Amino acid sequence: MRAAMAAAEVGDDTLGDDPTVIRLERMLADAFGFTGALFLPSGVMANQLALRLLVPPGQELLADAGAHFLLYEDGGVAWHGGILTRTTVSDDGLIDPEVLARMIRPATAYGSGTRAVAVENTHNAAGGVVYPLAALREIRRITREAGVAVHCDGARLWNAHVASGVSFEAYGACFDTLSLCVSKGLGAPAGTVLLLDADRLEEARVMRHRMGGSMRQTGILAAAAIYAFEHNIGRMAEDHSNAALIAGLLRDSGLEVREPQTNLVFVEVPDAAKVQELCATAGVRVSVMGPRTVRLVAHLDVDKQQCERAALTVAKAVAQLATSS
Amino acid sequence: MRAAMAAAEVGDDTLGDDPTVIRLERMLADAFGFTGALFLPSGVMANQLALRLLVPPGQELLADAGAHFLLYEDGGVAWHGGILTRTTVSDDGLIDPEVLARMIRPATAYGSGTRAVAVENTHNAAGGVVYPLAALREIRRITREAGVAVHCDGARLWNAHVASGVSFEAYGACFDTLSLCVSKGLGAPAGTVLLLDADRLEEARVMRHRMGGSMRQTGILAAAAIYAFEHNIGRMAEDHSNAALIAGLLRDSGLEVREPQTNLVFVEVPDAAKVQELCATAGVRVSVMGPRTVRLVAHLDVDKQQCERAALTVAKAVAQLATSS
Amino acid sequence: MRAAMAAAEVGDDTLGDDPTVIRLERMLADAFGFTGALFLPSGVMANQLALRLLVPPGQELLADAGAHFLLYEDGGVAWHGGILTRTTVSDDGLIDPEVLARMIRPATAYGSGTRAVAVENTHNAAGGVVYPLAALREIRRITREAGVAVHCDGARLWNAHVASGVSFEAYGACFDTLSLCVSKGLGAPAGTVLLLDADRLEEARVMRHRMGGSMRQTGILAAAAIYAFEHNIGRMAEDHSNAALIAGLLRDSGLEVREPQTNLVFVEVPDAAKVQELCATAGVRVSVMGPRTVRLVAHLDVDKQQCERAALTVAKAVAQLATSS
Amino acid sequence: MRAAMAAAEVGDDTLGDDPTVIRLERMLADAFGFTGALFLPSGVMANQLALRLLVPPGQELLADAGAHFLLYEDGGVAWHGGILTRTTVSDDGLIDPEVLARMIRPATAYGSGTRAVAVENTHNAAGGVVYPLAALREIRRITREAGVAVHCDGARLWNAHVASGVSFEAYGACFDTLSLCVSKGLGAPAGTVLLLDADRLEEARVMRHRMGGSMRQTGILAAAAIYAFEHNIGRMAEDHSNAALIAGLLRDSGLEVREPQTNLVFVEVPDAAKVQELCATAGVRVSVMGPRTVRLVAHLDVDKQQCERAALTVAKAVAQLATSS
Repeated sequence: MRAAMAAAEVGDDTLGDDPTVIRLERMLADAFGFTGALFLPSGVMANQLALRLLVPPGQELLADAGAHFLLYEDGGVAWHGGILTRTTVSDDGLIDPEVLARMIRPATAYGSGTRAVAVENTHNAAGGVVYPLAALREIRRITREAGVAVHCDGARLWNAHVASGVSFEAYGACFDTLSLCVSKGLGAPAGTVLLLDADRLEEARVMRHRMGGSMRQTGILAAAAIYAFEHNIGRMAEDHSNAALIAGLLRDSGLEVREPQTNLVFVEVPDAAKVQELCATAGVRVSVMGPRTVRLVAHLDVDKQQCERAALTVAKAVAQLATSS
Repeated sequence: MRAAMAAAEVGDDTLGDDPTVIRLERMLADAFGFTGALFLPSGVMANQLALRLLVPPGQELLADAGAHFLLYEDGGVAWHGGILTRTTVSDDGLIDPEVLARMIRPATAYGSGTRAVAVENTHNAAGGVVYPLAALREIRRITREAGVAVHCDGARLWNAHVASGVSFEAYGACFDTLSLCVSKGLGAPAGTVLLLDADRLEEARVMRHRMGGSMRQTGILAAAAIYAFEHNIGRMAEDHSNAALIAGLLRDSGLEVREPQTNLVFVEVPDAAKVQELCATAGVRVSVMGPRTVRLVAHLDVDKQQCERAALTVAKAVAQLATSS
Repeated sequence: MRAAMAAAEVGDDTLGDDPTVIRLERMLADAFGFTGALFLPSGVMANQLALRLLVPPGQELLADAGAHFLLYEDGGVAWHGGILTRTTVSDDGLIDPEVLARMIRPATAYGSGTRAVAVENTHNAAGGVVYPLAALREIRRITREAGVAVHCDGARLWNAHVASGVSFEAYGACFDTLSLCVSKGLGAPAGTVLLLDADRLEEARVMRHRMGGSMRQTGILAAAAIYAFEHNIGRMAEDHSNAALIAGLLRDSGLEVREPQTNLVFVEVPDAAKVQELCATAGVRVSVMGPRTVRLVAHLDVDKQQCERAALTVAKAVAQLATSS
Repeated sequence: MRAAMAAAEVGDDTLGDDPTVIRLERMLADAFGFTGALFLPSGVMANQLALRLLVPPGQELLADAGAHFLLYEDGGVAWHGGILTRTTVSDDGLIDPEVLARMIRPATAYGSGTRAVAVENTHNAAGGVVYPLAALREIRRITREAGVAVHCDGARLWNAHVASGVSFEAYGACFDTLSLCVSKGLGAPAGTVLLLDADRLEEARVMRHRMGGSMRQTGILAAAAIYAFEHNIGRMAEDHSNAALIAGLLRDSGLEVREPQTNLVFVEVPDAAKVQELCATAGVRVSVMGPRTVRLVAHLDVDKQQCERAALTVAKAVAQLATSS
């Protein structure tokens, strides 16, 4: 990947003429059946930009209350976008289509209208849950009838694809906009590609510039993303089996674990912050997802042995906490 | 009331020295056990101003998905306030305290923290539902522990008070801010009073000015509100019995009616827009609350006979629709 | 005026059917040659609403750096409207048309385009300066060619009309939107009417609702405004001669005074805040317009004798300060 | 530079632990005498983030009307930041300190207060003008007395340093925040470093995340920036002499040219858009800076011969236009 980056042909992506960026954008747009694509510095910007394209200030967006853009993006969708959000609450990150149908509403003189629905696949806060294709299609059907758009936060769509076997095209057909992270699981250093209709591209470029996301010789990063897209998807099955391994080990040690569907493992612990600290000391990084929940992530930089070690480190930390208290 | 207005002593409320406005503000603050109050042109401004006082841009507010500020205020809380909202979904407009406790979260480097919860009493979109005092107290307890504020949209709190017998003080003790509409049920021409801590008043006045809500010789309107507060609360029991009468008549004519708790009657009809139109022709004004729901409101300008006529007009409109289709 | 208010026929202006409000709106629209009008609680809201109608978020507005909406509206145009402002700097509040022509720019992929120019007549911060009709017409010509709109903050347009003899229609023809305050000089208790194209009215009503400016039985206030419009304009000439009297007395006492064109008198003092305080103690209210500038206002509630007394009070306060320091 | 990038040690800059990014940030903070630094994807984000750190929503920022953040950032400072701007107008991009001193104002109940002043060095829209150190020091003195902050858009500060011989420390001492572009003249592929007080870093990181500017293994880009900082500053003198060469050639061919102080050449042409098009056909890229102004930029990817060719291409394009019309 570093070799691909060192050899990358570049231009000025602010002006839209970096050839490697253009190649990456076209490659992903084609794969998912979209007509347009835009390279962005982060998934946070991709989500915000997509949602702002679909929902004007003061209008409404529906989503699950555990969506990444609600929990982990510092409220940007409201502050920068002025977007009103109403949510359903669930354990699995999925929106009940019947409830959705009742929540959608047209604009009136007094009230904002629903302009878009946001889904997340896989769903991070719910533990890497794969959104069933049938559910996405039902949401697509309901929203199409109501003239409402759908955005998918696909930071981990690669994992959903590998776990479910659903094709890129089949997923792509369900959404108006789709963000795809090329770092995280895919393994490139940075960047997210937003897929959209080509006729929204000009507007999206202005928004990207206004948000500070226009970079110059971005071909360097795009080259890495192309390499990652071509080499690192198949191998994610390994991450998923490593996650299953971690989950099994944690369960064996008596902990309550959400059965992983992809590469994320959520485990209940007595004190997430302390477990995180103890693990860090032992060289294992885990994320705090709630006061008593930590997350372990299987990815391309950790092999089977390291995953085993991580599971045991967490188990040991919990044991240590039990003793010390 | 007109006499009170004509005789009102006035000053310049932009400068905070209109004596009649000050008298109204003190009267309501005292009644509900607050230290500060601010006269505002509308309930929409009161809600937005209160929520902005409690929640800085980019931070989070929790509410029921049917809240007035979400459904009927054109998204101002997001556009002007930059406030992120997450919601629970219910039929009765009440927030399940257990779900609320799980949704509240502290701010982190990645995510907004919950700063406030909004409730509505009575709840308009749910059909004038009275918020049980025990539920409000449970929400107060949960939020106090978490360092989270509570705003109450009390546009119809008068009705809740009359229907439940709960005292103003008991309600007031549950909230950090409380908006009280003096038009609608109370019968003054215009205005809402926002109750709050006196030490937030200066900030609230700047916000009011920025939002365009500072008016000048507002004593005229305040005089009417004082009159209404002193004369029109007791008589709301009549509105409630009129609403019950309307509901009974509608039910007798075979329609599905939500049992009214206060002065609002929600009735299911085959086509709300057409029923509204037919009723308007017959001189009866009803509101469309959903594609198949209309609302009738019993208030001080309609007596028992008029309420009966309104119910019969709706029933007739529905019958007429059935025939014509 | 109180009698007119007490007898006013009212409706619900939130729904747009208050007959007295409609009469006021039509009266002013007709007088100035506009097709639409909207009653609002304050001049601050009128300015913000007009500017938001003319300039979408992120786009540009040009104005004099001393405009009321920049100096005295708590930044609402930026915070609520997201409007970018660039300004010229002047002593008289007038925009140099040549400079304006150079500043206007079309939108590009990188940059906001100029959508509107705001003027103020009379100009408050410059001391009640009357905007010369020829200058307004030149601005209208330049902006029309460039496809740029013009808003006039006409809180004191009545004074400009009386001082210059320019007709309402001649002024109206220069602007896309025009705000007219009915309190202040005109003497009604509260409210501002915004004149605009009738085809923007629906959008303006939604904005008004979102900003919290929809009130209910506003006919009470509109009745006062109609009375004021019909009775109080001619008499403003008296305010202007009273202002000249004040200026003369202050100048006679050795103070530096800006020659008043209308009803505002700006006088230089050694310490504006202290002069304000001393005058207040003596029952005379003056405004602080700068660290060493105070403003006196001649209006319908103060007669010639009171104006004389006010001038002498200021002179005495300055003398007192000189002695005590 | 590519070799440096290929060998870069990386971490996750979202978490703040990318060692190469940390090294770059420290290097620039030290050079300019700041305690904190933050790597950002673009100069647009750096300006917006700095200005939002210094100016809360609804408060005021003063600047020259030709500032980059006003002309070329799509109004983000107003839309995202809610910042009110007032400006002076000049030909050279410099703010008159006396005018500045008069414009600065404290917040009141009615009006925003001035919180910051923004300068740009070199000034892009004025033609690469170097801000005299004495003027910057006078602005620093005035603002310090008034409790107002100063931001410098230093996208081209390297050129100012090379042209004027003023040290990094001397420039740094004049500002509260300073953005430094590492692409453009310096030659790295992408990125801007914002210098600031270390105690604002945590807040700045949250803002960066909210704006979508947190990237992951950014060390790749930082490695290029370190290389550029260590190798490409001295050679900018060459760009400046190439700019002088271009200016001379253009002037010789009868065109009106602003005397370049650094690497930018502004030339007046009859039709900027057409000249741009003709030059593009001939393989020379020029920027349109006004209806009759184009900009040529001397930088490290163009040598003396190419600069000569560029100048002659522009001259030829103008000649061609003259003939064809």
